[in-house]
Formats: sequence, structure tokens, C-alpha cells
Amino acid sequence: MPVINVKSSSHSEMINITSQIARLLPKDMECGICHIFCLHTTAGLTINENADPDVQHDLLAALERIVPWKSAEFQHFEGNSAAHLKASMMGFSQTVPVEDWRLCLGTWQGIYFCEFDGPRERQVHVQFIPGETA
Amino acid sequence: MPVINVKSSSHSEMINITSQIARLLPKDMECGICHIFCLHTTAGLTINENADPDVQHDLLAALERIVPWKSAEFQHFEGNSAAHLKASMMGFSQTVPVEDWRLCLGTWQGIYFCEFDGPRERQVHVQFIPGETA
Amino acid sequence: MPVINVKSSSHSEMINITSQIARLLPKDMECGICHIFCLHTTAGLTINENADPDVQHDLLAALERIVPWKSAEFQHFEGNSAAHLKASMMGFSQTVPVEDWRLCLGTWQGIYFCEFDGPRERQVHVQFIPGETA
Repeated sequence: MPVINVKSSSHSEMINITSQIARLLPKDMECGICHIFCLHTTAGLTINENADPDVQHDLLAALERIVPWKSAEFQHFEGNSAAHLKASMMGFSQTVPVEDWRLCLGTWQGIYFCEFDGPRERQVHVQFIPGETA
Repeated sequence: MPVINVKSSSHSEMINITSQIARLLPKDMECGICHIFCLHTTAGLTINENADPDVQHDLLAALERIVPWKSAEFQHFEGNSAAHLKASMMGFSQTVPVEDWRLCLGTWQGIYFCEFDGPRERQVHVQFIPGETA
Repeated sequence: MPVINVKSSSHSEMINITSQIARLLPKDMECGICHIFCLHTTAGLTINENADPDVQHDLLAALERIVPWKSAEFQHFEGNSAAHLKASMMGFSQTVPVEDWRLCLGTWQGIYFCEFDGPRERQVHVQFIPGETA
């Protein structure tokens, strides 16, 4: 199965991986679902606006206000519990419909890898499950 | 593939779309999964209690306390970054098992469209993927 | 379809159900996806670190700071609205790739049942959808 390599360059970062995923779509797949899975526990996946990068900035900043990196109350020795929670809040997989031989995303939707404890080299698993033509 | 049209009437609103989805279930599908996908970036999907509407009220109010609409720190020019984050927190898709020719939901579960920047006309994509009978 | 019974013993608790799910994998399934679905509205599912239990402690404690159990603003008569929101934030399903006849999880990933209003007896539905071998 295809795995996408994602290299983050900051501590917290949203990386648009839509085109890398679209490229993997099997040529013979008219409809079904595309399942995208993050193989880590301090990074997640989400869908969000693909136009104004301020949206990504605002999402990361608001998540940091909700789950501050520094909290005297975290016990985990690695000190990255905030990243673990942010990843669970975004989710570890996204599932996107495939229709008419293409990813069926809304006009403004992009698929984002969400790094919360970078910079690191990460891996995302991509799989396509065929559906029945309507 | 079927698309459900959802018309929200408030700024923030949870709309129960369970029966609209159940109606689309193919008659010949004994088991599999039902994939429901929101085609927007300021609205999401979740599952939650289908009985007391106070639960929906409390969810929306608590989300607003966690991600306040007005934040001096948001940069996105449209001013709706809170809606983008709330949508990512709920998620853009839900996947529900199909078993014995019906949606396999828990007794108290309903599927909700979550509007965070309405009122608007919205679209939800629904797809069924057959599974193997046990 | 297989259902896993989960018995929680505290009010808030993350229970590792990875091995119970792996055990259900059909012997003839080389690749596909495993869909895990929580049949409740005050408990959810997530993926997170399977090593240091302090991560689970920190996740539950941080979620409690974000969505406090006691809030004068909750209206729902059962008083457990916080549990409903935490469950929606974690999600009600997880979907994990199956590859080479096994669950394809990252090294540090485990699948967790998230109890937010226990102790209770709970049920998780597990289903496998075959994919195409690459």
C-alpha cells in the first residue's frame, strides 16, 4: 500500500497533502472511499480551507490556547502530552469519497497533515476501497 | 452518489440527519459501512444523543466557550476561524456500520450536521460500501 | 458482526482494546480497513500512545480542564453534557488499515475506548471491509 512521507519543518504545522494523495488514486477506480491514516501519536490529520493560509495559522494558534504546550499538570516524561491530545482532537484518519475517478472534496477543502511535535519525518498510509457505482 | 441538502437556520446549529441518511440505504445491502462526508470547512458532522435537545444546546454552548467566535488573535479576514476549528474538532466525516439491512446505531445515537457559520445551504455526501456477511 | 464488550471501572478512563480487535481479524483478509464503532454517546474512541500510561492520564486530565464536568451553564437534566462533548471530540469511530493480514498501526499506536461517564458496561462494533491487493 502506498505510504506518503511528510517532513515537517516547525514544531506545529499544517501541511497540505491533497495533491500527494490525489496522485495515488488508482486509474480504474470510479467510486469508493480514500482512507488516509497517520501512523503517529503526536500528529494528526484534518480537512480544512485550502485558500487563505491564515486559517491554518488561526487553527494552530487556537489549539495552542486550548491545549497549552506547557502545563504544570502534565506527567508524561517526554513533555509532549499537549501534542498527543491535539492529535486525538483532529483525528488520526480522514476518509474522503471517490467519485467519477477523482477525490470528491468540497471547493474549499484540502487534506492536511497536522504536526504537533515537529520538526520530524512522518508517514501517512493511503488506501482506496472500491464502492459500487450508483 | 446521493447528496443530502441541509439548510441551517442559525449561526450555530446541530441538525439531525439520521432519517435522511437511513432512507438512502440500498435495499440490497445487508452489511457494510455508510460513509457520510461534509463538503464544507466551517461545518462538520458528529454523532450524539437523539433524545433531549438540551444535549445539542450544551454541546454548542460549550464549544463556543472553548473556541470563542470573537478572538482578537484570529487573523483570517473572513472572521470565522472559530467555525473552521469547531468543524475540525467534530470532524468532516462519520462512518456508521450497516448490519441486517439497516444503519447499526446505538439506541441513543443520532447523526448530526453541525453548522458553525450559518445560516447557509450545505451539502452532505453519502456513500455505502458493502462488507462481507459474517 | 462482532461486538466487543468493554467494562469501564472509573468515571473517566482510556481502555486499550487493540488486542481484542486484532483477534477478530478474518484469517483470509490480506488488506482492507477495520472499522471500529462505539455504540454510545458519552464514550468515544481514539488512537494514542500504547507505552507510557501517563499519556492516558494527561489526556483525560487535559480534557477535563477543557470541558469541566461541573458547569453551571449545562442544561441537560442528566448532568453529563461534558461526557457527550468529550466523546464527540474524540470521535465515535476509528478506521485502521489492514495490510499483510494484520492491523497496520504505527509502532506507538494503540486503539483506546474512552469512557467519559462510567463506570458502565459498553459495546464496540467491529467490522472489516476488504480492499484490493496492490
